[in-house]
Parts: sequence; C-alpha cells; structure tokens
Amino acid sequence: MSQPAAPFRRLAIIGIGLIGSSIARAARQWGQAAEIVCADLSETHRQQAVALGVVDAAFADAAEAVRGADLVILCVPLGAYGAVAQAMAPGLGAGTLVSDVGSSKQSVLRDVAPHLPPGVAFIPGHPVAGTEHSGPAAGFATLFQGRWCILTPPEGSDPAQLERLHGFWSAFGSKVEVMDARHHDLVLAITSHVPHLIAYNIVGTADDLQTVTQSEVIKYSAGGFRDFTRIAASDPTMWRDVFLNNKEAVLDMLQRFTEDLTALQRAIRWDDGETLFKLFSRTRAIRRAIIDAGQETAAPDFGRTGDGKQ
Amino acid sequence: MSQPAAPFRRLAIIGIGLIGSSIARAARQWGQAAEIVCADLSETHRQQAVALGVVDAAFADAAEAVRGADLVILCVPLGAYGAVAQAMAPGLGAGTLVSDVGSSKQSVLRDVAPHLPPGVAFIPGHPVAGTEHSGPAAGFATLFQGRWCILTPPEGSDPAQLERLHGFWSAFGSKVEVMDARHHDLVLAITSHVPHLIAYNIVGTADDLQTVTQSEVIKYSAGGFRDFTRIAASDPTMWRDVFLNNKEAVLDMLQRFTEDLTALQRAIRWDDGETLFKLFSRTRAIRRAIIDAGQETAAPDFGRTGDGKQ
Repeated sequence: MSQPAAPFRRLAIIGIGLIGSSIARAARQWGQAAEIVCADLSETHRQQAVALGVVDAAFADAAEAVRGADLVILCVPLGAYGAVAQAMAPGLGAGTLVSDVGSSKQSVLRDVAPHLPPGVAFIPGHPVAGTEHSGPAAGFATLFQGRWCILTPPEGSDPAQLERLHGFWSAFGSKVEVMDARHHDLVLAITSHVPHLIAYNIVGTADDLQTVTQSEVIKYSAGGFRDFTRIAASDPTMWRDVFLNNKEAVLDMLQRFTEDLTALQRAIRWDDGETLFKLFSRTRAIRRAIIDAGQETAAPDFGRTGDGKQ
Repeated sequence: MSQPAAPFRRLAIIGIGLIGSSIARAARQWGQAAEIVCADLSETHRQQAVALGVVDAAFADAAEAVRGADLVILCVPLGAYGAVAQAMAPGLGAGTLVSDVGSSKQSVLRDVAPHLPPGVAFIPGHPVAGTEHSGPAAGFATLFQGRWCILTPPEGSDPAQLERLHGFWSAFGSKVEVMDARHHDLVLAITSHVPHLIAYNIVGTADDLQTVTQSEVIKYSAGGFRDFTRIAASDPTMWRDVFLNNKEAVLDMLQRFTEDLTALQRAIRWDDGETLFKLFSRTRAIRRAIIDAGQETAAPDFGRTGDGKQ
C-alpha cells in the first residue's frame, strides 16, 4: 500500500520566522506537501531552516521559491507585502493558491492583489497563534493545534481553492472560520492589537520612571507587571506594521479603551467603590469562558514553573 | 534530640483566603509557629481551613484568635483593616507583633495603628506573590518561594521585632526588602496596581462591544487578550480596596500611562513607524531582565500547557 499523495505538490513559504517555520514543520508532520521550500531575505534564516530540516530548499529570491508551487504562504511583516508580491509575481503559475498569515486582512488585499498574475487565486488567512519568540528555531509543529485560523476570501473566490486551504489548516488541528476582512480587522483589534499596544505601553512607562528604579520594577514584577512583558517582547517589526496597517480599527478600539479607563480613573478619584467592584466582578466570567472554550489553561498563574513554584 | 522550638508560640492569621492560608501552610511546613489559628467572618472559610488542616483552630471573633498570640498577620481586604484592628484590639497582649500582607502600606498605618494598645509592635508587610484564585483551598506553602516580601517599619520600630519578622518570611524562601511605606506605594502602583486596572479595563471594554460578539472575543483570545484575563480574574473586593487605598500613587502612574498611550495613538494616526519601532524594541530587554532575576519563566508562552500545545 502506498502513502496517500500529499494535497499540495510544492509549498512555498515566504519568510521563515516563527510562524513560517511552524507551518513548514506542521505541513511536513501532517503530510500536506510533497516538497516544502522557502524564501527569506536573511541568509542566517535560510541556513537555519535548511539545517533544521524544516524546508527542502531555501531561496533568497521569492520568484524562484514560488516557481512550480501550488501553494504559497506569505509569512513576512505586513509592511513588506507589496514588495514581496511584486518580487514573486514572475514565478507564479496559473492555478497557484496564494495565502498569508498576517494580522490585518484589508491591507493585505490592497497590497498583494494588484501584483498577482491572472489565474492565481488569493485567499488571505490568519492563524490566531504565536509565542513571544522569533526566528526559524522558535517554531514548532503543534503551534496551531486547537487554535482558530480565520480565512477572508474576497468576493468571487473559487470555492474549490477555499476548500483546499480549509483542509490545509484543519490538518494541523486548527479550527477554521471564514469571515469578511473588515470584520476580521475589528475583531483582532480588540483581541490582539490593542492588548499588544497597552502591554508595550505600560512596559515603556515603567522603564521611563525616575521615582521607581528599573531594578525595582524587575524585582517586584510578580505583582502583575510581568504578565504584560510577555507580549511586549513580541517582534518589533511585525507589530509596528500591524498598527500601521490596521489603523482605523485600532484607533476605534483604543478610543473605547481610553474612555473606559477614564471612567475608572474618575471612580478612583471620587471613591466610587461600587463602579470598581461591578467591573471587577464581571471580568472573572470571561476568563472562565475562555478556559471552557479550550483557549486557555485552567492552572493557576498560567501553570508557570521554574520561577520558585514547583 | 528534641525539635528546635518554633520562633513563634501562637500565630494568628486574620482572614484565611489565598494568602492567609498560604502563610498558614508555609508556617507549618517550615516550623515557624507552635500553634496556628485564624479568624474569618465566613463560616465556610473557617470550616474549610480546619478541615484542610491548615489551622489548629478557627474563630469568628478576631479578639479570641489573637489572644495569647505573639504574631498576628492581617490578610483581609484593605477596606476592612480599621474594623478588624478595632475588633481584635481587646485580645492583643503586650509584646505581640502585628503585621499584614496588604498591597498598599501608607493606608494600613493610618487605619490600624490608632487601634493598637500600647506595647504592641506594628510592622506592615507585603509579600509580592499571588495567583488569580481565591479562598483557603487555593493556597499553597511554596507561594512565597523566590518572591520578594517588602516590610515597611514605621519610624521608631523595634529592631528586634523587625528581625523576627524578617526571619519569618525568609523561612518561606522569600527575599526580604525593607523600605519606606510611601515608596512602596509608588513601586507597587506601577508594578501591580496599574497593570491590574488596565487588565480589568480591557476585559470590560471587550465585553461591552456590540460590533464584536463575546463569543468572538473568547474564540480569538489567544491573539493576546487572554493574557490579561488572568489578573482581571483576581478577587474583586481586594482590588477595589487597593485602588481606594493607594489612590494618589495610582492616579499619578495612570496619568503617565495615559500620556504615553496618547503618544502611541498619535504615532499610529500619523504613520510614525519609527516611534512605534523604537518603543517595541526596548521592551524586550525588560522581560529578559525579569527572567534573569528569577521572577519569570523563560519558557515561551509562560510554558502554558493543556491548551493544544504539549
């Protein structure tokens, strides 16, 4: 009995960082592509990816990587999409499915679609998964397991290509949801982008203080601060580009966040304990629901280990 | 050969929740008191504490609990300090050392000191440790291991009593620091209080949205949001009281946080990628320093388990 043929002949991953290399590993582990190649501007990343056995070949030129590929996934920072799309276009053959993993989806359509030759299908995607680490060595095959992957097919997309992409992500253990790009950008602004912004912000505020030393911030960080440093340690280029490319939704959500924070500030100033207590009581229920939905661990303190607790 | 005598004869813990019960367990495990008792207004908590073997006896009346005690530790929400101090005063004997675990230290001195009979030593304390869970069953003996405990002796405190309290916390594996109450309140405002406030706030903002459903917030929370829900699941009464009792320092730090956030908002609006990139680059170093100081795990994603990753 022979192995069932892989759904894709050649998978080309453009950008072999944390997410790109996790896709490559997962595609290998769950037999999704006969050949897996990548393109990356960094020679170190290309060498690492080949040495780790994550890809069969690595190219500096995106057009070479996508030549003969039937699935191409962009895993570069959002600000590089236009240039990358232009660079790879000459290598793209008719029938190729192009997708991506970017955190904003309206900008992706705007930046990539104009460069694609006719006959190439473009269906943007976004696996809602990651860690605070970067680079090809940080990836792992199970990163997407149990996590959601959102696909945002533009109007008139080929249902057969959507089905193939759906199958690709499902094979990694992802749950797949299809939605409109505009709605995606709103949802991610509140579940991911604004949380990252305020985490980066408070770490910056603490770092700038003169009345409290940096060594004190570090020593007493277990009081809550350290939780924020995890996402504030995420890739700076990737996150700069997220904010510049999902500006409208981020500014909208940020406005609401600030309004609400101002109301809490006022409650503190005027000793309005009831307002504080009411908010603090209903937020517990949301964590419970996230745990029940399998999107969070039930262990106290994230099940942290190696920091004193056994 | 007989066991060395415990440093304290009778330890009375007032309020047997997460922190109180963790102290009781630690004191038992590291032989810090011959007898351990508690007072708690909740009958359920008293019964649980006795059933779990965490205390030798549990009282509804604080005065009864402290009678004959040489060490008393208040582990109740900050808003209850005045009433509890008044209630226990008749039971306090001369030479007793009274301390606490509250997150603000100036208010504690203001609320407790006036009620204490002459000859009673009062040295406030604050172990910077905890989880998002509450109640006597949530406690564990190693909670304080590797964490800092801050003591804020008022001017004129007896050095011998300070030394005894220092030894008590050191026995649990805590690192002990002595500082001025006012400085403590400033340090904790940035390392703990403001982080909690903004975590509560963003969870509330997300919950109130109408363009994004609650089920979407839950599904896609792995994009960053879920990190904030942990501290936003902390005890509502305790945290209401923290904000009302460390008002000045919290409002000061909040003002800085908002100023900085407004600058980031402006950078996003005006496509100022450089400002964003510069901030996002320096915040990584702080996490590294916290890990190096043994206050955080180096594992990606807090070493979370049970949520898809193995």
